[in-house]
Amino acid sequence: MLTNNKIKLIKSLKLKKNRESHGLFVAEGDKLVQEFMDSDFVLESIYTSNSKGYPEAVKVSEKELARISNLKTANSVLALFRIPDSSLQLEELNNKVTIVLDNIKDPGNLGTIIRIADWFSIETIICSKETVDVFNPKVIQSTMGSLARVRIYYEDLPSILNEFSVPLYGAVLDGKSIYKRTKLTEAAVVFGNESTGISAEIFNLVNHKITIPRFGGAESLNVAVSAGIICSELIGKPD
Amino acid sequence: MLTNNKIKLIKSLKLKKNRESHGLFVAEGDKLVQEFMDSDFVLESIYTSNSKGYPEAVKVSEKELARISNLKTANSVLALFRIPDSSLQLEELNNKVTIVLDNIKDPGNLGTIIRIADWFSIETIICSKETVDVFNPKVIQSTMGSLARVRIYYEDLPSILNEFSVPLYGAVLDGKSIYKRTKLTEAAVVFGNESTGISAEIFNLVNHKITIPRFGGAESLNVAVSAGIICSELIGKPD
Repeated sequence: MLTNNKIKLIKSLKLKKNRESHGLFVAEGDKLVQEFMDSDFVLESIYTSNSKGYPEAVKVSEKELARISNLKTANSVLALFRIPDSSLQLEELNNKVTIVLDNIKDPGNLGTIIRIADWFSIETIICSKETVDVFNPKVIQSTMGSLARVRIYYEDLPSILNEFSVPLYGAVLDGKSIYKRTKLTEAAVVFGNESTGISAEIFNLVNHKITIPRFGGAESLNVAVSAGIICSELIGKPD
Repeated sequence: MLTNNKIKLIKSLKLKKNRESHGLFVAEGDKLVQEFMDSDFVLESIYTSNSKGYPEAVKVSEKELARISNLKTANSVLALFRIPDSSLQLEELNNKVTIVLDNIKDPGNLGTIIRIADWFSIETIICSKETVDVFNPKVIQSTMGSLARVRIYYEDLPSILNEFSVPLYGAVLDGKSIYKRTKLTEAAVVFGNESTGISAEIFNLVNHKITIPRFGGAESLNVAVSAGIICSELIGKPD
């Protein structure tokens, strides 16, 4: 059974300010909840309408689950996890490729980029403070569990990028073709906002401007698609 | 001014059956409407709250525009275009690369794949009958105008693929690495459903199974991201 206070708390976690004050976020669905449980994330509480599985879960009715769910059709399990308390160590970035996101607004795009990072074994994503919150329920659901394996930090980008010792690449519309570059081994690659691209302040810090050559008429590619193509071409792909 | 009947008609076009019976679809926003007007699509009617531009437009109030808009925040222009009456000619596919979509359900994914096709100069996309309707307002808005340059057909896939003279490639999780293949010049590449992949019936028709090698832990990539990477690696990229 769920108390009214608990229902109120869980529903309040739709908003970032409440997630921050409680230090909690919501994940729904067997696969996703399991991925977080198998990771370093700390489980706070878990609710299920399924009589099997999850010995630690509070049993709730399907109706109760529908009340606390963020999904159109509630899944059979919903869990609260603690938002990890972590801070970026710049040495983490040495000898690796890191993704930097400058003001990505769409939750689906952020979730998709986290899956791409996970696929290509990129360990760290650094987001500008204006980027959509990774603990937003829509982001969590679209990561498909990859968040359990990719570290996300929110930083003041201009100041943190100034401290980077790794070269900074930026995905732009008029840079050097990605097909003419060799594989990246130590770099941070910036992707900009869906409409406005990389902001002027960050653009000025970029050492290497890179571009996916266009062959047809489209004005741009979706930012997650660009990230996927660039990761494939410059990071994942064997020499 | 908008009559109630007109408002009712425009709002009814949210549903596929009404789009089909009227042969009309809705596009919103200056850039998108302009792209369709500059293409072979036939304009049926256009409504704007902006006193400048669009001499052929019916002037409406912002409140009226908000009533007929499919967007959270209505743009200053909304237009109805005729759904083109076209049928696939198999010879169109010779000496080219075509995308085939088997049961893509998410409107954003279809819109994004149309932008990818446009970027890489792929002229034709063939969709299974179960794939989300391209004239769905969410698809139209997410294509960013690329639909004006890419032809989309809905076909009974198993029977049409049987008639293909071009080789059929399928994006799967355990095929041959895309990094070990040479560029495609004449092919149809199938991408499957977001959750279940390529259906068994289509899978049996695939001549070449191709895969984006995985380096990390993610179980899969978003289908539009996969399409972007495969188009970049096997279609767009110079030799």
